[in-house]
Amino acid sequence: MKDNTGYQRKSLLFGTAYYPEYMPYDRVETDLSMMCEAGMNVVRIAESTWSTLEPSDGIYDFSFIDQVLEEAGKRGMEVIIGTPTYAIPSWLEKKDKNIMVKTKAGQAVYGRRQIMDLMNPAYRFYGERVIRRLLEHTAGHPCVTGFQIDNETKHYGTSSELVQKLFLEYLQQKFVTTDRLNETFGLAYWSNSIHDWSDFPDMNGCINAGLSCEFERFQRSLAAEFLLWQSEIVREYKREDQFITHNFDFQWKKFGADIAQDGYSYGVQPDINHYEAAKAVTIAGTDIYHHTQDQLTGAEIAFCGDSIRSLKDRNYLVLECQAQAFKYWTPYPGQLKLHAYSHLASGADGIMYWNWHSIHNGYETYWKGLLSHDLSVNPAYEEACQIGDQWQKTGKNLLNLRKDNKIALVVDNQSLHALEWFPIDRDLSYNDVVRWMYDSLYELNMECDVVDINGLDPFKYQMIVTPALYSITEDKLKQLKAFVSNGGVLVSTFKSFVSNEYLSVYPDTQPHLLHECFKVHYNQFTDPGTAKIKGQPVQYFAELLITDGAGALATYEHKYWGNYAGITRSDYEKGSTYYIGCYTDKKIVKEILTMAAKDAGLTDCIPDVCFPVIIRSGVNQDNKKLHYVLHYSEEETAFVCPYDRVNNLLDGMNYKKGDRIPLKDWDTVILEEE
Amino acid sequence: MKDNTGYQRKSLLFGTAYYPEYMPYDRVETDLSMMCEAGMNVVRIAESTWSTLEPSDGIYDFSFIDQVLEEAGKRGMEVIIGTPTYAIPSWLEKKDKNIMVKTKAGQAVYGRRQIMDLMNPAYRFYGERVIRRLLEHTAGHPCVTGFQIDNETKHYGTSSELVQKLFLEYLQQKFVTTDRLNETFGLAYWSNSIHDWSDFPDMNGCINAGLSCEFERFQRSLAAEFLLWQSEIVREYKREDQFITHNFDFQWKKFGADIAQDGYSYGVQPDINHYEAAKAVTIAGTDIYHHTQDQLTGAEIAFCGDSIRSLKDRNYLVLECQAQAFKYWTPYPGQLKLHAYSHLASGADGIMYWNWHSIHNGYETYWKGLLSHDLSVNPAYEEACQIGDQWQKTGKNLLNLRKDNKIALVVDNQSLHALEWFPIDRDLSYNDVVRWMYDSLYELNMECDVVDINGLDPFKYQMIVTPALYSITEDKLKQLKAFVSNGGVLVSTFKSFVSNEYLSVYPDTQPHLLHECFKVHYNQFTDPGTAKIKGQPVQYFAELLITDGAGALATYEHKYWGNYAGITRSDYEKGSTYYIGCYTDKKIVKEILTMAAKDAGLTDCIPDVCFPVIIRSGVNQDNKKLHYVLHYSEEETAFVCPYDRVNNLLDGMNYKKGDRIPLKDWDTVILEEE
Amino acid sequence: MKDNTGYQRKSLLFGTAYYPEYMPYDRVETDLSMMCEAGMNVVRIAESTWSTLEPSDGIYDFSFIDQVLEEAGKRGMEVIIGTPTYAIPSWLEKKDKNIMVKTKAGQAVYGRRQIMDLMNPAYRFYGERVIRRLLEHTAGHPCVTGFQIDNETKHYGTSSELVQKLFLEYLQQKFVTTDRLNETFGLAYWSNSIHDWSDFPDMNGCINAGLSCEFERFQRSLAAEFLLWQSEIVREYKREDQFITHNFDFQWKKFGADIAQDGYSYGVQPDINHYEAAKAVTIAGTDIYHHTQDQLTGAEIAFCGDSIRSLKDRNYLVLECQAQAFKYWTPYPGQLKLHAYSHLASGADGIMYWNWHSIHNGYETYWKGLLSHDLSVNPAYEEACQIGDQWQKTGKNLLNLRKDNKIALVVDNQSLHALEWFPIDRDLSYNDVVRWMYDSLYELNMECDVVDINGLDPFKYQMIVTPALYSITEDKLKQLKAFVSNGGVLVSTFKSFVSNEYLSVYPDTQPHLLHECFKVHYNQFTDPGTAKIKGQPVQYFAELLITDGAGALATYEHKYWGNYAGITRSDYEKGSTYYIGCYTDKKIVKEILTMAAKDAGLTDCIPDVCFPVIIRSGVNQDNKKLHYVLHYSEEETAFVCPYDRVNNLLDGMNYKKGDRIPLKDWDTVILEEE
Repeated sequence: MKDNTGYQRKSLLFGTAYYPEYMPYDRVETDLSMMCEAGMNVVRIAESTWSTLEPSDGIYDFSFIDQVLEEAGKRGMEVIIGTPTYAIPSWLEKKDKNIMVKTKAGQAVYGRRQIMDLMNPAYRFYGERVIRRLLEHTAGHPCVTGFQIDNETKHYGTSSELVQKLFLEYLQQKFVTTDRLNETFGLAYWSNSIHDWSDFPDMNGCINAGLSCEFERFQRSLAAEFLLWQSEIVREYKREDQFITHNFDFQWKKFGADIAQDGYSYGVQPDINHYEAAKAVTIAGTDIYHHTQDQLTGAEIAFCGDSIRSLKDRNYLVLECQAQAFKYWTPYPGQLKLHAYSHLASGADGIMYWNWHSIHNGYETYWKGLLSHDLSVNPAYEEACQIGDQWQKTGKNLLNLRKDNKIALVVDNQSLHALEWFPIDRDLSYNDVVRWMYDSLYELNMECDVVDINGLDPFKYQMIVTPALYSITEDKLKQLKAFVSNGGVLVSTFKSFVSNEYLSVYPDTQPHLLHECFKVHYNQFTDPGTAKIKGQPVQYFAELLITDGAGALATYEHKYWGNYAGITRSDYEKGSTYYIGCYTDKKIVKEILTMAAKDAGLTDCIPDVCFPVIIRSGVNQDNKKLHYVLHYSEEETAFVCPYDRVNNLLDGMNYKKGDRIPLKDWDTVILEEE
Repeated sequence: MKDNTGYQRKSLLFGTAYYPEYMPYDRVETDLSMMCEAGMNVVRIAESTWSTLEPSDGIYDFSFIDQVLEEAGKRGMEVIIGTPTYAIPSWLEKKDKNIMVKTKAGQAVYGRRQIMDLMNPAYRFYGERVIRRLLEHTAGHPCVTGFQIDNETKHYGTSSELVQKLFLEYLQQKFVTTDRLNETFGLAYWSNSIHDWSDFPDMNGCINAGLSCEFERFQRSLAAEFLLWQSEIVREYKREDQFITHNFDFQWKKFGADIAQDGYSYGVQPDINHYEAAKAVTIAGTDIYHHTQDQLTGAEIAFCGDSIRSLKDRNYLVLECQAQAFKYWTPYPGQLKLHAYSHLASGADGIMYWNWHSIHNGYETYWKGLLSHDLSVNPAYEEACQIGDQWQKTGKNLLNLRKDNKIALVVDNQSLHALEWFPIDRDLSYNDVVRWMYDSLYELNMECDVVDINGLDPFKYQMIVTPALYSITEDKLKQLKAFVSNGGVLVSTFKSFVSNEYLSVYPDTQPHLLHECFKVHYNQFTDPGTAKIKGQPVQYFAELLITDGAGALATYEHKYWGNYAGITRSDYEKGSTYYIGCYTDKKIVKEILTMAAKDAGLTDCIPDVCFPVIIRSGVNQDNKKLHYVLHYSEEETAFVCPYDRVNNLLDGMNYKKGDRIPLKDWDTVILEEE
Repeated sequence: MKDNTGYQRKSLLFGTAYYPEYMPYDRVETDLSMMCEAGMNVVRIAESTWSTLEPSDGIYDFSFIDQVLEEAGKRGMEVIIGTPTYAIPSWLEKKDKNIMVKTKAGQAVYGRRQIMDLMNPAYRFYGERVIRRLLEHTAGHPCVTGFQIDNETKHYGTSSELVQKLFLEYLQQKFVTTDRLNETFGLAYWSNSIHDWSDFPDMNGCINAGLSCEFERFQRSLAAEFLLWQSEIVREYKREDQFITHNFDFQWKKFGADIAQDGYSYGVQPDINHYEAAKAVTIAGTDIYHHTQDQLTGAEIAFCGDSIRSLKDRNYLVLECQAQAFKYWTPYPGQLKLHAYSHLASGADGIMYWNWHSIHNGYETYWKGLLSHDLSVNPAYEEACQIGDQWQKTGKNLLNLRKDNKIALVVDNQSLHALEWFPIDRDLSYNDVVRWMYDSLYELNMECDVVDINGLDPFKYQMIVTPALYSITEDKLKQLKAFVSNGGVLVSTFKSFVSNEYLSVYPDTQPHLLHECFKVHYNQFTDPGTAKIKGQPVQYFAELLITDGAGALATYEHKYWGNYAGITRSDYEKGSTYYIGCYTDKKIVKEILTMAAKDAGLTDCIPDVCFPVIIRSGVNQDNKKLHYVLHYSEEETAFVCPYDRVNNLLDGMNYKKGDRIPLKDWDTVILEEE
């Protein structure tokens, strides 16, 4: 795939998702004029409108697309075309009822988006046809800058007969004999072993965690393969200068009413592997939703941005970011700007609101766009105009920000699912541990890459953090050991290095293999009860650590567990290791991370301030260092300039080292070093 | 329907539902004697006993009915005969399994009541046959005073193939083209538009709120049509002097254990439209259940009573009211009387307990009747005897109470469902807003009609209150505007006048059209967070109101929303308007309502006391003004007589203006003006 | 069944469940050596390994069993062989899909254990065949000391067509006519009566509590019959000296994450009747799981032990007890010993851990065994070694402890289910009431038998306690009356003696029949609201008792219920009765029980200390009195020796009356009288 490695933007993108199909009356000209007035230069269209594009089998109608392309053309705007496959027309469902996904819960009923069986041949046939027609029709248009394949693709829990048959073939190829299958997953347990492949049972009843997680891995690979398939089709039509992207989303954390879609981007996506799937695109794209108003911290923007940037170690597009969204998120003055710059500070090359206008009669009527339902100027639109104005002036300075982070936080789908089967605690998920560690780094202004274990090259980094990396291969363990031997600093939490890739717990000293580097082991763990550590309550889980040469940074404060360590540090060959054996207050985690960063020789590049003043840095196209200063607080404050000579790109003010730089509530300052 | 307009009672009804079929041994004579001793004059029978009436297909057994009629005849009691169709015999289910309702959750299994597909032809055939036989058998009996058709009829979520086919025909007739259907409901969203009626999908998967609510409207109309169908059959047999009624119930609010039926009558019924369905009856009937003991407030009795009376602007029957019911509701001394008079105070022409005796072995064993399981005299029965005694003395004075309320509270099924799809807040439903406004009026002793939007004639009223009237047609909006123009006072809450009748948000200034009368508009709303208004916390929801001539009665107390109004008042032509843009403490609502009542010129007719002393008034058959004084408190108190010369009908005491009238705990006083 | 009545152990059993099939590598020799070093003398094998024993239809592989038998033989250990029928191989599910149980929730999907239809002929055929082969293969081996039939058998909610047909036949036989069926269950209610057996409906939709509970009684009998069937097969092969046992479990109370199995043995088992099923075994067995760490009270060990011992009034085996289990239960030092002795103190003749090793890749990976996943020595194993050492020294003194309790606590499956249909309160189940009474006795050191109502011989006891014995036959009521007449003391709580065996509430004075002995009746009950009794809040439920000669030990403190008694006492002929009409603090229950014990003349045999110092006594094989002193607290304490001359078997110390005997945290002392 020759062009996968490097689409580079020539300008920041600023725009919105736009669906003229949903409008109560024809407003394309009006809307694109308002966008232009706001300084927007891109619209993203078509990704959920199959029933409009192909109202009946084989009948096509591209009039909405043509109208947008024409109006965009007049205004010099770019257009991103989405393939419409993630929501199917009802006529298609009538072709083959097995297009609707079958999951453990039964077969889906037509209505929602994202409920197809991705492997269904009829779905593939009609999907391919509409993609080809759409690409034929649009790829040649000068405005069209790129394509988004499908949208927020996941495996949707597909476990149809077809998918189960494919999984069986996959297992047969991988394990060859049923004996190896039985041994690998311990199927003798509760009489689940098989001795003939024809005895392989329905996966919907499976209670073997390892085999179930292998099935989920297989399901994720189907979703990745589906995107690759679309990508191959698009490549047949697209120009060299056009990109292919996809809108990757994150684990959604629900709040608010059940029926409503209120929620936010919280952690690692369980139902597709971003690293695997990113092979299909030339530039990664994402949607990121997050609390705002008093709860705006920037942590989700940073976590998700660091994750998406790390997929290809490159800039990316925020294909969807929130405008007004839910009632909880009506932005305070200044917050829409702060959102926008927070995205750029992570390496985004542009943002697009979801979406332009609030929808008048769909499921997402109260997922509000930039315009409210009255389709008129409002405070959100007015603040977007300010962003557009600033980007027209400073866009060149902000484009293609490069980062060279020396810290990696390692994430893993398999560990995520493992800890769903074997919860650390009812109230502590894998992603909670990931965010506990990530947010601690974030609040300390220690920038990091968020790297999938499958894509990790340890030797690029000086410090590696593994939150609850439960499942890991022997090979990866050996790499991590070599990383420490060669001088790296490894910081690991409880529930790391417990099982192999098939969730079989390593039947020897824990943590497996790396106990040599940590110089610590354990054979007991406990609910912490009333135990404390360093004066703070221990919560959810505590491993009772026995040191074998490590230093105990803290032992448990408890009548019976007082002899056991809870947090340890050790040197190992040229490197050093930290093991955090229990969950406790983030302030203790931050102490450990600060020590570790010092060991890793990273202290110099970490700013001296911390949350709510967040500084995120990089190098721009002019090879100048850029520092985003993002102020997530309603209190005014100031901070002391740590840089020799800098210029705030947003207001032209110059500062030198030691100057007090004022920060208003929810303020953004962008300092360019001279 | 010639006789729909006016069945008038000649005496108060006092009695019980009675099921000799459920008795552990033959007690008809004993029971009717005990009833007579309690002053009862009516029993309601047969409504759930199909399997007893028709034990096998075509075999009838009316012996229980005959026995009751005979014993009632001896004692001069009236008998209400219920058609037995709301619970089917098992032999009927064996005729056609599609008699059992199919809903989103699948097909019901035989056992419960109210799980038939109302449109199933076999159900209709056998239902009609048993009704005809029952009417042939009973209509001529002199005791039989009227008929109840079915019981607590609702649509039961029916979405069988047949019902979906009928719905499709209804849509075709209403919208003619699929284009109009698509535009009306915005089906282009998520690719749901169709271009051939044969592509119309299964409604069970529908995620379009507008289309789903249209389906629910259709389902409600099936339930109403079903009652009309029964009514037409009954009319072929009944005498001129016999009434037709139905037992309308309200949205049930559950408490207590899941399996138990503990709950109470809370708000607007979602699953049948009372206004539409009431066309089938000559006198409206209802069941009303409510908290008692320390939680007895009378609010549910008043709300439900005002609703049912308003259906036909006439007196009605309380076909079921609680005796001892759940363990939570064992009445304190005096409360059973207070219940009874509270019903009459709303315009009821009688009450019947549900039910006579506690059941020994049914699902509702612990929904206790007037007699406990020992079937003997007990405190509840003894208090019923006092009621019977009083009504024999004063019944004539209490019968046919007429009201001429000048305030209307407007309710709407469509808005109810709309706000299920688009919740204001997880913890604030449509009915919560309805009750918030109704209860404020109630506690202020401002009597009102509770009127379905479809039956509203605004010009009958001086003041109209619209709680969260989310969905409304342009026509109705114009009527409300004319109402204000002509001098009316309109009090509306947040989420009023947002969408049209198909839940499509009006794509212009909000609140649609009436913003001209309110002189206010908004294009932002928010979760209130820490905002306050008039010193009280704002909860759940706040519209950020911009005044366009209105007076801001209150602005938000909040760092960022302080420039926006939360409650406004405006004059408009001859009338005036109040807009309450957020949810807050009832005491603030009461201030607004008091101002509005003054604007409407209603101050004189509102008593000067308030909850827990509730005064509800009307004019009796002798054209005398009657004032029920209902005391919902365990504390003794007194109140100052506001009437020139009155007589307490219950004890004969006379009072004149300024006298202190003592009120015991849970006391009732009925003052008749001279 | 000739040999049902008396298998007697010759030595205490100490060992573990053991599954070499689940091991990551061959460790049988290592494991049995480690067991021997710990003083263990038994392993229990095979009960869930059908797919290993019979990998394909008719192909058998006993190699794991042979290996264990060989190694056990070398070491003189005993082996218990479990029939493997509670988890089926996938090849068997392929034979007949109706092997998977059908319940109200639909048909189970293969995967879990315990989801077969016990009545399925194919399941029976293949189950019988594998049992016969296993028995043929093992019964002759000298190590094999006994057989466990199936495991934790329950009815699994089976309601397949076959089971429903059998139930219908059972009803026809029992009631003969549909009229009697209708009358018995009150089926006229909601039109459920039938007049032809062919009209009998699907039980899955049944809403008649009595009929549903009759069905559950029938389902329980199927489970009991299934065990009897297995027992008959085993008897064809077993030697005279070999026992048959079954692993009875208790109602499981869940805590922790939903997916996890965290929970504990709480109360009466709803889904099989232990008393009925115990006919199949020659020695009862059980598993008992319970809180430990700070929550270790011993109450579950005592309750379950007293229940199982009472099945046959004999010693029993704890076939599963917890080693390390869940993270919450990692034992503090000393607690594993305290667990072990607590089991013996109730009359167990041995304990076996579940299980030997933690499992590396099964559903119960975090239900940890004695060995952790590293399969090495750890603190739990080390403490087990101490137990083994002590039992080798003192085992003979501890074996075959006999008890002659004079108090019976009566339990009943039917009342349990009745109160699921008619909950006392959302938060108070039948088992809550059982445990409230049992735990009060336990904390007072009043030892009792826990007796199924069907096995109760009242005249064996001096005091009988009935917690919420809702459903009871007239015959049993008459027995209880005779018990009191003859001098017995009866202590009953609210909701006792309400309905007959078909859940039909007795239609006369409550409590039925025994109101004559209690000299009290009621016809009202209530939620207690703010009522108190003896200064303590009344919770959940209160009967408003009217005394008819009884003494009111307490009346309600409440404005309206103050005239009613809440707790009463009465003499009746030679006996006396206590009626506890409401739920309140255990300390009041304990006052009542203490009075009752005095009436029953039991004061002398009740120790003068109470929880957390628990004393449980009996007579050993040498006819010496043995007193277990179990200290459930982390605080050190001492207690005064109440016995003339005793010897602590664990350390050889001698004490005489009045000596202070020191108790360390979580300590055990075993005093043998001289």
